Amino acid sequence: MTDGLTVAVVGATGAVGEEMRAVLGERRFPVRRLVPLASARSAGGSVDWRGNDVRVELLDEDSFRGVDLALFSAGTTVSEQFAAIAVKAGCVVVDNTRAFRMDKTVPLVVPEVNREALDDHKGIIANPNCSTIQMVVPLAPLHRAAGIKRIVVCSYQAASGAGRAAMDELRDQTVALLNFREPRVEQFQRRLAFDVIPEIDVFMPEGDTREERKMVDETRKIMGLPDLPVSATCVRVPVFVGHCLAVNVEFERPLDAADARALLLEAEGIEMDVDPNAYATTADVAGRDETFVGRVRDDASVAHGLNMWVAADNLRKGAATNAVQIAEDLLTRQLMRVP
Amino acid sequence: MTDGLTVAVVGATGAVGEEMRAVLGERRFPVRRLVPLASARSAGGSVDWRGNDVRVELLDEDSFRGVDLALFSAGTTVSEQFAAIAVKAGCVVVDNTRAFRMDKTVPLVVPEVNREALDDHKGIIANPNCSTIQMVVPLAPLHRAAGIKRIVVCSYQAASGAGRAAMDELRDQTVALLNFREPRVEQFQRRLAFDVIPEIDVFMPEGDTREERKMVDETRKIMGLPDLPVSATCVRVPVFVGHCLAVNVEFERPLDAADARALLLEAEGIEMDVDPNAYATTADVAGRDETFVGRVRDDASVAHGLNMWVAADNLRKGAATNAVQIAEDLLTRQLMRVP
Repeated sequence: MTDGLTVAVVGATGAVGEEMRAVLGERRFPVRRLVPLASARSAGGSVDWRGNDVRVELLDEDSFRGVDLALFSAGTTVSEQFAAIAVKAGCVVVDNTRAFRMDKTVPLVVPEVNREALDDHKGIIANPNCSTIQMVVPLAPLHRAAGIKRIVVCSYQAASGAGRAAMDELRDQTVALLNFREPRVEQFQRRLAFDVIPEIDVFMPEGDTREERKMVDETRKIMGLPDLPVSATCVRVPVFVGHCLAVNVEFERPLDAADARALLLEAEGIEMDVDPNAYATTADVAGRDETFVGRVRDDASVAHGLNMWVAADNLRKGAATNAVQIAEDLLTRQLMRVP
Repeated sequence: MTDGLTVAVVGATGAVGEEMRAVLGERRFPVRRLVPLASARSAGGSVDWRGNDVRVELLDEDSFRGVDLALFSAGTTVSEQFAAIAVKAGCVVVDNTRAFRMDKTVPLVVPEVNREALDDHKGIIANPNCSTIQMVVPLAPLHRAAGIKRIVVCSYQAASGAGRAAMDELRDQTVALLNFREPRVEQFQRRLAFDVIPEIDVFMPEGDTREERKMVDETRKIMGLPDLPVSATCVRVPVFVGHCLAVNVEFERPLDAADARALLLEAEGIEMDVDPNAYATTADVAGRDETFVGRVRDDASVAHGLNMWVAADNLRKGAATNAVQIAEDLLTRQLMRVP
């Protein structure tokens, strides 16, 4: 067994970077040395690592010398610029941006669903989009049982999906409105406080947003179903942490709600109450690593139809936890170099 | 032309009752005398009517003497108890509760969709559920063009759908959380501030909530399609006024997004931007009578599929405005007695 890895967290001061440090600590990932990295804006300060202040270093081309594992969550352009440099320095990269997700040579992995995709990695592993991760965790066991024919999903996504400044803006907007002041709008397309916004990321030519395209394309890649019909509508709601999904699934073969619940109760990474009407909301999932499933009910509007409600902490299972799980799997299955 | 009707508003002090008075005034409905009625809890106070204070009378069996039109919005049990009494007194009742909506002898009407159902009314006309109203307004012209095969709808519903006390609770919960105090939870199943709740009204035996059943059953009745396949998931969001719907529709015949937009731009009661990516949120619809449609886009996951985003003021088009429109139609088409 190793006496520990040198682990870099790129974007260490961000909302996901903070959770990455927390999850590495909680799950007792074998970290010998943590290297928090950030851009010039945030470097120089310090972050907590197991109760100690650790200095945040400036990300540059020499940052990855002696680093074994790098968790990237500092934006797509940073990953595009530095992930290859990290790999060249001998590092394995788990990247939480969209930079490499649809790259055919890069595995896109949710361990409960397709950990076998890690087997042939070339140094970079992509961590999927938050909403996609929490959708495929419960869909995978149901697909194995009955074959998914089509998915229609609507999301209820928290402000933290857009980062720490977005969370601050939701709070500031809320306070402003309660005090009859004009709210400031910078992080979102319009005011989010006491409203909902059906526009996450930019619009694509066909009228979907990029967030919606991610849910389609990444679900297909992770599940290994390149033609799976998926319709997604992604909506920001005035919540700080925790994404929820209303998922409507049509199966190829019969699968009623009772059978689906039985499968999900046994499935890896899923938390579910035995009461069929029970459900989790964001208040239940914040700080938790599981994907919470509830309200699994038959949908009589189509043959072999089901509805379900899926909630997860978008910064944990939707980002940091899934990234660390990937690293754990690489270690356990000896798919990365260990010092 | 009449010199005006005597109009009772039952539940005059509630969130919908207030909008009913506002809408009657704004639309210059021919009111000779307004009779605000309420239960013992609220009677005795006064409400505004065209700038004057009008005393709120106690609702009892004699309240409808001399009243021509009564708009009920004081809860299902009040309607069950008093609507027949009002009709017996010679009154036409437009009822905003679920008391009579599924009664085969009672028309359930959204004027833009099925005003002809008013022709044979027996004194009571049911005003549909808020979410249903704003869904069928845009679906009706699309159904006429291409035939709806199946609907999957997810809602984003405001606190005001649960009444004035629920709006107060959302505000109080929000203030409590921002001040690190424990929020009070009485009006909803759990805290709504900074969270979402996929449970509106009670659970039915099959696992749908009653709100979800309403969206299925009422849509079928209003559209005259008793077997129309509809799947609904209804979710409360921390918004004061304005419901939004993400509607996925599968048609029998080809109908692409461009054609659907052309139909909707011409349709009665609909507000839509020519920019296909534009959409309205609750901030846009509060105080407005139209149903706002946006983000009409092709859904490639099924043959002849479309997605659209629908927003409306749940207290106006979802309740008060639709009720007053029904009364206007009864008057215009001489389907009620005029003094």
